Amino acid sequence: MKGNINNNNMGLGKSIKMYLTIFVATTCIYMLIYQYHMSTQEIDSNEVIKPPLYIITPTYRRPEQLAELTRLGYTLKHVTNLLWLVIEDANETSPLVFDILDRIGVPYHYLLAPMPAQYRIKRFKPRGVSNRNRGLAYIRANATEGVFYFADDDNTYDVSLFEQMRYTKMVSMWPVGLVTNTGVSSPIVRDGKLNGFYDGWIGGRKYPVDMAGFAVSVKFLLQRPNATMPFVVGYEEDGFLRSLKPLSNDDIELLANKCTEILTWHTQTKKNPSAIALNQTRYGGTNLIAIDKLLVRS
Amino acid sequence: MKGNINNNNMGLGKSIKMYLTIFVATTCIYMLIYQYHMSTQEIDSNEVIKPPLYIITPTYRRPEQLAELTRLGYTLKHVTNLLWLVIEDANETSPLVFDILDRIGVPYHYLLAPMPAQYRIKRFKPRGVSNRNRGLAYIRANATEGVFYFADDDNTYDVSLFEQMRYTKMVSMWPVGLVTNTGVSSPIVRDGKLNGFYDGWIGGRKYPVDMAGFAVSVKFLLQRPNATMPFVVGYEEDGFLRSLKPLSNDDIELLANKCTEILTWHTQTKKNPSAIALNQTRYGGTNLIAIDKLLVRS
Repeated sequence: MKGNINNNNMGLGKSIKMYLTIFVATTCIYMLIYQYHMSTQEIDSNEVIKPPLYIITPTYRRPEQLAELTRLGYTLKHVTNLLWLVIEDANETSPLVFDILDRIGVPYHYLLAPMPAQYRIKRFKPRGVSNRNRGLAYIRANATEGVFYFADDDNTYDVSLFEQMRYTKMVSMWPVGLVTNTGVSSPIVRDGKLNGFYDGWIGGRKYPVDMAGFAVSVKFLLQRPNATMPFVVGYEEDGFLRSLKPLSNDDIELLANKCTEILTWHTQTKKNPSAIALNQTRYGGTNLIAIDKLLVRS
Repeated sequence: MKGNINNNNMGLGKSIKMYLTIFVATTCIYMLIYQYHMSTQEIDSNEVIKPPLYIITPTYRRPEQLAELTRLGYTLKHVTNLLWLVIEDANETSPLVFDILDRIGVPYHYLLAPMPAQYRIKRFKPRGVSNRNRGLAYIRANATEGVFYFADDDNTYDVSLFEQMRYTKMVSMWPVGLVTNTGVSSPIVRDGKLNGFYDGWIGGRKYPVDMAGFAVSVKFLLQRPNATMPFVVGYEEDGFLRSLKPLSNDDIELLANKCTEILTWHTQTKKNPSAIALNQTRYGGTNLIAIDKLLVRS
């Protein structure tokens, strides 16, 4: 009897061990399956393997500024692995701009680049040049790969364009709608090759293209330490692209389905005059006192 | 010996059954845990329980049309459970508008509502009224709950506003930036209550507000079968809001943190003239032939 009991006990002990082993083994299998499932999901949704995009957006204080940054920001928010370089022509940053950028939620750096005094007094001011050169300096100092693009805050961009420009090897180009009396500024593509430019104003430019019409590889820029944008109104794009030499027309990649689609538009927003002053006495104790602090009087 | 073997066989058979039972039981437990995990995730990400939003956007054929719809669309794409009613002042739909709406990927209906002939010949045309009344007719015929909002295609909207207006019980209001010489059109809030309106042009209106400054509950509209927007330039908002009577000032919900934030702007886009004709002979065989078909000549 003793022997029998012992045997039974040993059998029960062995069984429990086996049951536990199977339970633990099954648990391990499902944990591994789940972990694999999660890891593939992460790659799918964040797409961390894509080359980074640097979006250089010049801006300046005016009544429309916060609105423009808001709607551009919501477009950029659809694009992964993107850093938004918002660069203001000002001597100090604006808390309102910081608030808006935080609210939008696109990864950003907010930098300053005041226009040099000698250009500020001119009738036709080279707006945005100082800002864009500041953006180039940031990229030279901080980036090693990926692509950069000059995206003004009042233009319109189709999200698919960002995914196309992301893989630019040297310089890529595409059509921009609503530019000059031709209604579009575009590379001319004949037999699959770049064959000149279509734009309502050529003005002796080698590259008669719009600022929204090209992107450049970071590696390519780093190999051209002297590339810069000139402070010459109307020749900003041309001067910058010329400074990227050597650059042959065959090196220019033609995006937007070989330049047959319009995925960017040079929209311009009507300027608003400064708002009249709020009667602080009459409206004291109302919400208008708080609202008044948000109005940008340039 | 035979008895022994039999005993062993029976023990083995029992053990296998038990092992299998434990394996299956463990599998079932993890499947249940995983299903529960997935079901809670779905609720988190799609938020299907939110009331639906109906966005009524009047539009018309012009060079900027596709750009405007693109950038508004990318803002709306951040908002869940939203139906975009794009309503064009035209007698036939445009394949280019269909293409753009499909490309953006926001759920939409593209409807037509030509302006009646008697208004088309006037110097100051009541633009968008026919479109908005078509939107109201759609809602009366198809919606039972949620909220609707008139969102012109050239304005700018902060996404958080849509989440606030979604819970409107009757009519909600908030400030709109860049309207008239006051720089903002806003309800005046004193001691937490609506105490009049601040706008550069009052013009005898009971509700001197901008089209972008209010949203209305669908249920509330359905209880007012005669509510409609009048074809009177400058009095579209006032006329529509008056037609929602009975509506007391106490019924109006004050959003955007009691009207102390600007989350909408009445941005206006500069109009472009029609593009000059493309020289089809000179540019035959190039990409410009395809691009030319995309240009909107109004």
